[in-house]
Amino acid sequence: MNKTIYMISGPPGVGKSTTSQQLVQTLSKSAYISGDDISHIPVNGRGKPWLCKETYDLTWKNILSITRNLLEQDYDVVIDYVTFPSEVEWLVQQLSNLEYQVVYVVLLADQSTLLNRDQLRPADQQMGERSLVLLEEFKMCSELRERYKLYTQQYSREQLCEIVEDIQHNPRFIWKGERSK
Amino acid sequence: MNKTIYMISGPPGVGKSTTSQQLVQTLSKSAYISGDDISHIPVNGRGKPWLCKETYDLTWKNILSITRNLLEQDYDVVIDYVTFPSEVEWLVQQLSNLEYQVVYVVLLADQSTLLNRDQLRPADQQMGERSLVLLEEFKMCSELRERYKLYTQQYSREQLCEIVEDIQHNPRFIWKGERSK
Repeated sequence: MNKTIYMISGPPGVGKSTTSQQLVQTLSKSAYISGDDISHIPVNGRGKPWLCKETYDLTWKNILSITRNLLEQDYDVVIDYVTFPSEVEWLVQQLSNLEYQVVYVVLLADQSTLLNRDQLRPADQQMGERSLVLLEEFKMCSELRERYKLYTQQYSREQLCEIVEDIQHNPRFIWKGERSK
Repeated sequence: MNKTIYMISGPPGVGKSTTSQQLVQTLSKSAYISGDDISHIPVNGRGKPWLCKETYDLTWKNILSITRNLLEQDYDVVIDYVTFPSEVEWLVQQLSNLEYQVVYVVLLADQSTLLNRDQLRPADQQMGERSLVLLEEFKMCSELRERYKLYTQQYSREQLCEIVEDIQHNPRFIWKGERSK
């Protein structure tokens, strides 16, 4: 069977990490890439990826290199990061010499659910306003087709396995960009 | 000035991470790679790098890719990992098209200091016997020249800045492998 890159996206606080970590556990040979962790490999001279193009480019180059190395060793890869369709397209283009499919899921929730979840996180990880800005960006993104969106406000933490099940088996999430295989 | 890759090695518990993190803070454009973190990107199907060749190879491939990306964006790179001279040599060979120097330091301490420091770490990070095995491997390693070794048992935590100073400015740590630049 083809290897799969799962790109688990959505605004901060929506549940990307929790979902990704549960997903990676259900797969038999699987790896987990935290985009946030990768973006923090640079320490001094680093900017916020959404403000500093150099840090942004470096983060995606590192995610790409690691993903390539993992695919070459037959791993399924789960990428947990704020990812827009143009970035999925870029990654797919860079990896065009390998065999794989991409599953792209943008987790969303209404404003109040998102703020509630954000406030449940440790204080130093709360994103506050930034969550809502990104929620709006995902909603307004004309390139983002409806079928990649997964609304999670009606799910409790105990129903996470249903979300993971849906991500793994619902064909609507399989990326069908012009340049994807 | 040339970019520098600092390879901070030594047995678990000797103080690689503490030293590396202080070192990275003293450099103006710098990145920190934890080999342990990189080795944990694979989750299911992963072996211990010192027992499973596939995980070992993957870990070094990922360290190499990230290091290359960082050098290309003019970062100094601090690699915190159990690293032997053959691995330094391999990395240098893979990066032969770039301009940089390698500073290679093997932090060592006597057995009782090492065990004491290991026991000060959180329980899930203690390496116990594995620390002593690696201490022995470094001592017995015929390829490891004396000048790359830095004995730390006489230093307290407050004197860490002296170690970092030495790593940065003492030319004896600059790698002079046959294939290095």
